[in-house]
Amino acid sequence: MRAHVRSLVDAAWFKRLIVLLILVNGATLGLETWPEVLAEHGTALRALDRALLWTFVAEIALRLYAYRRAFFRDPWNLFDLAVIGIALLPATGPFAVLRVFRVLRVLRLLSAVPSLRMVVTGLFRALPGMASISLLLALLLYVAGVVATKLFQQGSPRHFGDLWTSLFTLFQIMTGDSWSTIARDVMEHQPYAWTFFIVYILVSTFIALNLFIAVAVEALEHGSGRAREREGGEREEGAPAAAVPAPARPVDAEVLAELRALRGEVAELRRALPR
Amino acid sequence: MRAHVRSLVDAAWFKRLIVLLILVNGATLGLETWPEVLAEHGTALRALDRALLWTFVAEIALRLYAYRRAFFRDPWNLFDLAVIGIALLPATGPFAVLRVFRVLRVLRLLSAVPSLRMVVTGLFRALPGMASISLLLALLLYVAGVVATKLFQQGSPRHFGDLWTSLFTLFQIMTGDSWSTIARDVMEHQPYAWTFFIVYILVSTFIALNLFIAVAVEALEHGSGRAREREGGEREEGAPAAAVPAPARPVDAEVLAELRALRGEVAELRRALPR
Amino acid sequence: MRAHVRSLVDAAWFKRLIVLLILVNGATLGLETWPEVLAEHGTALRALDRALLWTFVAEIALRLYAYRRAFFRDPWNLFDLAVIGIALLPATGPFAVLRVFRVLRVLRLLSAVPSLRMVVTGLFRALPGMASISLLLALLLYVAGVVATKLFQQGSPRHFGDLWTSLFTLFQIMTGDSWSTIARDVMEHQPYAWTFFIVYILVSTFIALNLFIAVAVEALEHGSGRAREREGGEREEGAPAAAVPAPARPVDAEVLAELRALRGEVAELRRALPR
Amino acid sequence: MRAHVRSLVDAAWFKRLIVLLILVNGATLGLETWPEVLAEHGTALRALDRALLWTFVAEIALRLYAYRRAFFRDPWNLFDLAVIGIALLPATGPFAVLRVFRVLRVLRLLSAVPSLRMVVTGLFRALPGMASISLLLALLLYVAGVVATKLFQQGSPRHFGDLWTSLFTLFQIMTGDSWSTIARDVMEHQPYAWTFFIVYILVSTFIALNLFIAVAVEALEHGSGRAREREGGEREEGAPAAAVPAPARPVDAEVLAELRALRGEVAELRRALPR
Repeated sequence: MRAHVRSLVDAAWFKRLIVLLILVNGATLGLETWPEVLAEHGTALRALDRALLWTFVAEIALRLYAYRRAFFRDPWNLFDLAVIGIALLPATGPFAVLRVFRVLRVLRLLSAVPSLRMVVTGLFRALPGMASISLLLALLLYVAGVVATKLFQQGSPRHFGDLWTSLFTLFQIMTGDSWSTIARDVMEHQPYAWTFFIVYILVSTFIALNLFIAVAVEALEHGSGRAREREGGEREEGAPAAAVPAPARPVDAEVLAELRALRGEVAELRRALPR
Repeated sequence: MRAHVRSLVDAAWFKRLIVLLILVNGATLGLETWPEVLAEHGTALRALDRALLWTFVAEIALRLYAYRRAFFRDPWNLFDLAVIGIALLPATGPFAVLRVFRVLRVLRLLSAVPSLRMVVTGLFRALPGMASISLLLALLLYVAGVVATKLFQQGSPRHFGDLWTSLFTLFQIMTGDSWSTIARDVMEHQPYAWTFFIVYILVSTFIALNLFIAVAVEALEHGSGRAREREGGEREEGAPAAAVPAPARPVDAEVLAELRALRGEVAELRRALPR
Repeated sequence: MRAHVRSLVDAAWFKRLIVLLILVNGATLGLETWPEVLAEHGTALRALDRALLWTFVAEIALRLYAYRRAFFRDPWNLFDLAVIGIALLPATGPFAVLRVFRVLRVLRLLSAVPSLRMVVTGLFRALPGMASISLLLALLLYVAGVVATKLFQQGSPRHFGDLWTSLFTLFQIMTGDSWSTIARDVMEHQPYAWTFFIVYILVSTFIALNLFIAVAVEALEHGSGRAREREGGEREEGAPAAAVPAPARPVDAEVLAELRALRGEVAELRRALPR
Repeated sequence: MRAHVRSLVDAAWFKRLIVLLILVNGATLGLETWPEVLAEHGTALRALDRALLWTFVAEIALRLYAYRRAFFRDPWNLFDLAVIGIALLPATGPFAVLRVFRVLRVLRLLSAVPSLRMVVTGLFRALPGMASISLLLALLLYVAGVVATKLFQQGSPRHFGDLWTSLFTLFQIMTGDSWSTIARDVMEHQPYAWTFFIVYILVSTFIALNLFIAVAVEALEHGSGRAREREGGEREEGAPAAAVPAPARPVDAEVLAELRALRGEVAELRRALPR
């Protein structure tokens, strides 16, 4: 019985059906954002949404039945569970905002489409390498936030009124959006404020650049790793080493093999010598 | 006969003439944008444009005659055909907008100038590597669009009135243009909206950065491939291996050749031995 | 006695305690930015701040006692000393602004948390490689500043009134923030001003791009250095050279060893020959 | 006599003096931008400027005398000549604007300071690799300019009034500055204009990104070339090959040398054999 269920949930047509249902659900959730559509077809859309939700619940239940404990070992399954779980919570009272997050269900595409799954896994792999620099950036933001609040609180309360406002403004300046408007506004009262802004922009850009580079370095290493494997693989398909100008190590393996053969021949030569 | 036509369309002077005519046509199409120029020299410009168009039609017909089926195998020929075809469609009634796209004819430069052709081919090669991440970005945009429409529809209809408007606004925020104006506008009614904007900016920047890196990785691999070929090529011009500190594989080829010669010599040595 | 103190300041729990105290101090300094909080708990916060400051002074004194001269050899210790020293200066009269910089004390996290320390060291390593290009950028800024002041001083005094204002405006244009507003403003009086702005944007973007690349090259070299070491290290764990498609030098070392053994064998062969 | 002059212009102290004089001249040219300074010390500043100019003329004349024809072979000398030449032109009538470019004289720092010279040489080396992609970008700009002028000329003459205005606006959009303001402005009359803007932004960003990558690829290749040379150089300082995990070619040179020695030994062995 369990084997039957497992072969069902692993079947290619079943997976493709689920992807299709997710896309349909994404479309209905999108349609619901138009008040007129909601007014006219609201009941139908909600019924469809309900039906799709219970289909997804049934699908996860089947997978859970098929794989038992192993189900919880794959983080993607936990992701599916969480995304569907949000939709099952009662969205009333303080949780009304959760209704909005029903659309996160569309993110199940990430786990259902293999190529998206790979990309997301790749993105997550870049995260640990970013941790320290992100922490540094957060520290810079906090220190600059406290300094800016103390210095500019009086002069321009709109942008530096309290610590939260300053942090938001400094994040905005870090993204480079309209920083000059803010700086010129502050500089009307405090002409030397330009030092703060220019130092902050230079330092935060420099750190952010290094954050980007850390991600790129990680990606390039994986990328060139993949490329080298690909080159190695292509070679095995029969192209001679000399014809391919670029590839890497295998030539060395050939050199080594040649050398060992040569050494064997010399050793034999020595044995053949009259003593 | 066909061979004659083929040698004509492949002649360097013929190709250079076509490039020149494309440039002239580009200039006339540019001139037509000035109402005063159009009023004064409109008839002449249009006659010239017509003449050039029929020249291009004739040129493509010649190439089609010269190469027959092979013509359709080169995607650049299909591109030429499409670009010229647009200009031949009747630009009346609902197709009036097609008149505007006559200027796309200038894009024939892409197929006519070899260096541009190579660059465009290179750019297209980067596209498959971008597919999955672009899909991820589109998914993020859609999900964020639905969420933002539901959350901010009431508060700021100008930017988040319906799903299309939200998608445009979110694309704008992704490019970093004036996002703070929109965010501050929304935050006046919904002070906690900053969470949405900051999470969206961080996630979309991170994915876009990875999209850029994917393109760069692809380019770097091709770039260093090219560089290595170049280095290999330069070597053949006679520089000794030891004098060039950097280059790559060819040394290994030399090592391998040397080893094989050595092995041959040892083998001969063995045959020469008194047994 | 000195050994005891040294083992105390080097103990893991002591270091973790200091990190905790820095975080607490960061929080109190952040809280002080709210006037209401300051009004209500001002005395308590200031007392806590004082206590923490003296704790840090005591900690540094202990480290100074434990390491004597060696203390001054580690630049991070000098950094700690400077950051604490700022807080001890009398913040009255012309030095009142120094009160604001007490928050720099939070930066002691940089020296106290090893992973941050490493990141900052890495960032500093990128600085020498940036020196020449930064100088070039500064030169461009200065020359463009003088030219812009002379050309646009009359037309738009708000942005190009004197050299300092021009330099600030040109820095803003280099970051790409609202440059078109400034350019269109100037172009109302001087229609040909677009040449200046477009040339300046192209040149400064190009130089800034090269500055970024210089940083990336530095980082990539260190990155791939690390990667290669890692690959080398993994190899020692027993994987045969042929199974690993990518790695680098160690094969060459093997080839060399093999060659030397072979040469020895041939030399011995020669000695063994009947003469 | 000529040898004396040559040893003078090549002397380190002479070069350092010239650098100093350029810096002084840069300062005076900067000071002249303040009307008040010019009013008070104008005569002195202009006299100093004149004196410095003639010093530079004399210096170039000396170098010209010392090196004769060889002087014109170094492009940096031609650069010095041009920069000084501009200052000697009569800056009256239609050439009055040339007065402004006297400040370009400060750019002589580029040729006088070796590290700046190297950086600029490096930047110029990146230019040929950018040519084709820049041409593609220019083509895109032109085609988009003609299309945009035709489509939006009526609706928003401020931004797309004629071809030049459109080109400026499209350059602005390419840099990402306030594009949404322009797009929203146009979309009020032509709601489907978003397709044009989004396609244009995506395509131009993609091409610009590839332009940046082309520069980076060039730089990385030179960078890693330099790194490898450096590693090779460090090696000669005595570290054994096996201890250094990463470096590159020199090992191959060693392998090759070893192989050639071995081959010689085998050849001698063969001669020594009794036939």
